[in-house]
Amino acid sequence: MEQSTQRNLVSSSDVNGTTVYGSDGANIGTIDHLMIDKVSGKVAYAVMGFGGFLGLGEDHFPVPWGKLRYDTEKGGFVTDITESQVTGAPDRRDDWYADPDWERRTHEHYGVPFYWM
Amino acid sequence: MEQSTQRNLVSSSDVNGTTVYGSDGANIGTIDHLMIDKVSGKVAYAVMGFGGFLGLGEDHFPVPWGKLRYDTEKGGFVTDITESQVTGAPDRRDDWYADPDWERRTHEHYGVPFYWM
Repeated sequence: MEQSTQRNLVSSSDVNGTTVYGSDGANIGTIDHLMIDKVSGKVAYAVMGFGGFLGLGEDHFPVPWGKLRYDTEKGGFVTDITESQVTGAPDRRDDWYADPDWERRTHEHYGVPFYWM
Repeated sequence: MEQSTQRNLVSSSDVNGTTVYGSDGANIGTIDHLMIDKVSGKVAYAVMGFGGFLGLGEDHFPVPWGKLRYDTEKGGFVTDITESQVTGAPDRRDDWYADPDWERRTHEHYGVPFYWM
């Protein structure tokens, strides 16, 4: 596949609801919304709903963008996160997205590079 | 300012409506929505409404993300685009966001690096 055909643009209004698949191909949840760094123009987090999959109930969990990969054939994101990774993630304040310490610890927890470097 | 405090996260649900200022500081329009490259997680375009400013009426115009800079003090984006740049931009199809040739020509027109490189 040519590089140019691998681009896959979606509106910030439409990305909500995109399916997320686990590494075994099962539908494990959906994107509730993305958190975007306005300064760099990079997506920082996918805030995911698991809808009862992974035993995680209806809550929403911010997952670093680096844990997701878009699969153009599936038309959705793929991730290898596990239930214990999500439940074991650092506790967050309501304004977790403005808490640099939480951001650092969360990226370390998931083992992904900092999006702000 | 520390690098960590320059991060400024916004939800994909809330970015719509953010003000865009011209290089002279005037309010010239708003973000209608962003177009995000799902593969790279980078914002590719700001689709802007000019609301009559710049003589551009109520239509929406996709502007390459590289033309905008987020100003944390203003709480909005700043751009140096001009009316003639916007009106002189390459004609677009309804599915311009899936037209690699239009994307290339538009980035060249605005003189900004390709987001997909």
